[in-house]
Amino acid sequence: MTRLTLDQLPLREELRGQSPYGAPQLDVPVRLNTNENPYAPSQALIDDLVATVTQVASELNRYPDRDAVELRTQLAGYVTERTGVTVTVDNLWAANGSNEVLQQLLQAFAGPGRTALGFQPSYSMHPILSAGTQTQFLNCPRGADFRIDIPAALEAIAEHRPDVIFITTPNNPTGDITSLDDIRTLTDAAPGIVIVDEAYGEFSPSPSAVTLLAEYPAKLVVSRTMSKAFDFAGGRLGYFVADPAFVEAVMLVRLPYHLSMLSQAAATVALRHRADTLATVDKLAEERIRVVAALEELGYDVVPSESNFVFFGTFADQHAAWRKFLDADVLIRDVGVAGHLRTTIGLPAENDAFLRAAADVIKENL
Amino acid sequence: MTRLTLDQLPLREELRGQSPYGAPQLDVPVRLNTNENPYAPSQALIDDLVATVTQVASELNRYPDRDAVELRTQLAGYVTERTGVTVTVDNLWAANGSNEVLQQLLQAFAGPGRTALGFQPSYSMHPILSAGTQTQFLNCPRGADFRIDIPAALEAIAEHRPDVIFITTPNNPTGDITSLDDIRTLTDAAPGIVIVDEAYGEFSPSPSAVTLLAEYPAKLVVSRTMSKAFDFAGGRLGYFVADPAFVEAVMLVRLPYHLSMLSQAAATVALRHRADTLATVDKLAEERIRVVAALEELGYDVVPSESNFVFFGTFADQHAAWRKFLDADVLIRDVGVAGHLRTTIGLPAENDAFLRAAADVIKENL
Repeated sequence: MTRLTLDQLPLREELRGQSPYGAPQLDVPVRLNTNENPYAPSQALIDDLVATVTQVASELNRYPDRDAVELRTQLAGYVTERTGVTVTVDNLWAANGSNEVLQQLLQAFAGPGRTALGFQPSYSMHPILSAGTQTQFLNCPRGADFRIDIPAALEAIAEHRPDVIFITTPNNPTGDITSLDDIRTLTDAAPGIVIVDEAYGEFSPSPSAVTLLAEYPAKLVVSRTMSKAFDFAGGRLGYFVADPAFVEAVMLVRLPYHLSMLSQAAATVALRHRADTLATVDKLAEERIRVVAALEELGYDVVPSESNFVFFGTFADQHAAWRKFLDADVLIRDVGVAGHLRTTIGLPAENDAFLRAAADVIKENL
Repeated sequence: MTRLTLDQLPLREELRGQSPYGAPQLDVPVRLNTNENPYAPSQALIDDLVATVTQVASELNRYPDRDAVELRTQLAGYVTERTGVTVTVDNLWAANGSNEVLQQLLQAFAGPGRTALGFQPSYSMHPILSAGTQTQFLNCPRGADFRIDIPAALEAIAEHRPDVIFITTPNNPTGDITSLDDIRTLTDAAPGIVIVDEAYGEFSPSPSAVTLLAEYPAKLVVSRTMSKAFDFAGGRLGYFVADPAFVEAVMLVRLPYHLSMLSQAAATVALRHRADTLATVDKLAEERIRVVAALEELGYDVVPSESNFVFFGTFADQHAAWRKFLDADVLIRDVGVAGHLRTTIGLPAENDAFLRAAADVIKENL
C-alpha cells in the first residue's frame, strides 16, 4: 500500500504541524516521569479483580450499564468518607480518566466562542483539551513562586469573563496547593464554572474543594482521578463531584457506553481495597520529605510539594540536565518550564537512584 | 445539599432542552434492542481472559501503552485475514468503541466551519457526534427503499462539498448494504474524506470497503467495532483501517492513554478466540433468514438485511406497536423512523418469543 504524509490529508488547519501529546514512554530502569504510585496493587486486590472479571466475563457480549450506577455509588461513598461531605450517586460522574471527564465538561460548558482560563505552569492537558473542544484557552501565568497570583487572576477574570476556570491543586507540575480561601476568592469572581482539578488530592493533608460545593452549587466542579493515589493508572478512571445538574449536563455530550464493563468492575474492586492502597500514600509522603531534604542538601531549590512529585532546579538548561538523568538510567520529566524538572516519588530504592544521579548532575552546573 | 436544575447552569445554548442519547435499558426477559451478539463468550475465552487479567493486574498502577501497539497489531492480523488486504499496525487505530473512533476522526477532519454528510435513516450517533464536535451535519435522505439515492447524493455532494461523508454498510437500522461500486461513485465525488462504517461488516457476505483503501488512500477510512459480531459490546472496542497518515492525524486529537490496560488486554484475548466467536455469526445469519421468512409470512414488510437485525413494518403508529412488543416482554427498538421497528436477531428461543409477539401485534392493525 502507498503511504501518505499527513499534509496530503484534509486535516483541520490548526492541527497542522502539531505533535501528539505525551511523555516519552522509554524502557528505563527507574521511571519517575508520570506520577504513578510505584507500589503494585495488593494480592488481595488482584484476587478480587480476577474473581470479579470471572463473574462479568460471561456478559461481555452485552453493553455495559450506560450510567455506571454501581461504580458512581461506590465513588460517592469514598468521597463522603474522605471529605466528610455527604454526596450520592447523583453528585458523581465517571469516565475514562480525568482527561475524558474534563473534555466532557468543556464540551458542555465551553467550546467555540467560549473561553477557559488557567494558571500555567499547570496540567498541560488543560490547554490541549481546550483546543480539542475548540475552546479558547487563556493563561494567567503563576508568579515567580509558582503560586497563583490572585490580584492578576482577578484582573484576568474581570477582563476576559472566562466560561471555565481551571484550578489545579495540588498543582502539577509544581506540587503546591491553592488554599480554600483563594479558591473562594476566584470562584466568587468567576462568571462561569470553576473546575478544581484534584488529581493529586489524596497526597495532600489540606481539605478538598468538595467542602465548598454547598457554597457554590452552580459554579463548582471538583475533578479527581484513580490514576495516582489509587494505584490505578492502567485502569483509566477519572470522576467529578458536583451538583447533580452537572451530571445531567455531561450526559448530553458523553459517548453512550463510554465506560466498559471491565473498567466499571475493576474500578469498583479498586475502591473496595482502598484501605490497603491509600496506606501507600503515607509512605510516599515520608519519602517525599526525605527526597526534598536531600535535594536541598545537595543545593537544589525545591518548590514546596503536597503531592507525590517534586519540582526542582535551577538549571540553566533543564533539558540538558534531564538528559543527564536519563544517561544515569533515571527517567524524570521535563515539562518545558525553564530551569526546572519534575520527579515522581518512587520506591525508596528508586529515589536513592534518583538522588545519586542528582548529586552527579548538580556538579555539572547545567 | 441543594439540587439545581440544568437551566441554572451556564450550559451551551445548543444543548438546552436536549435529552441524553440512548435506548431504554429495561430489564425485560427478551432484549432485542441493541444489536448485541446473544451468544455468551466461550469458556475458553473467559479462561484466557482471567489468566490475562491475572497477569496484567500487578501493573495496574502503571499507565497503559499509550499507542496500544500489541492490540493494533492483532487487529491488523484479523483485518488482513478477513479481507485479504495486507494491513499492518500502522494502518490500524483503536479506541473505546467506534463512537470514540468516529469522534476523533471528526475532531481531526471536521469541526467548526466544516460539514459532514450522511444518509439517514442511518446510525443515529453520526449526527450526534457531529453536533458534539461542532460539525454541521447534513442529511441526504435515503430513498423509499431505504437505499442511498445515488443521484441525490451526488447532487448533495456537489452542492455542499462536505468535509466528511458517512456511509454505513450494512446500514443500521435498515440492514441493507451499499455496494463497493456505489461507494466508489460517492468517494470519487467526495471533496473530503469518506468514513465507511462497517460496524456490522462480519454479518455480511459482501466484500469490505477495506478492499478499496489502495484506490483511495487519502480519502477512505473504514471504521469497525468488536461490539457486535465479536461478542464484545461490554468491552468497548472500536477501530479503523486506513492509510497510516490517518492514524497520525487522530493521534493529534486523542486523549493520551485513552485505552485502559484492561481494554487492550481483553480485546487482544477476544481476537485470539475469534474462530469460536465468529462461528456464531453463521448461526445468526440462519436465524435471520428464518425470522425474515416468518415475518413476511405474517404479512410484514421486511427490508433486505445482511446484518444481525431486521427492519420491518409497516405500522401506522410504530411507537404503539413497540409498546405492544414490550407488553409481551420483548424489547425491540423504535429508532423514530415512521412505520418501522428494528429487532435484533437473538437466540432461537428469543426469536420465537419475538415472532409470537409479532403474530399478535399484526392483528391489532397498529
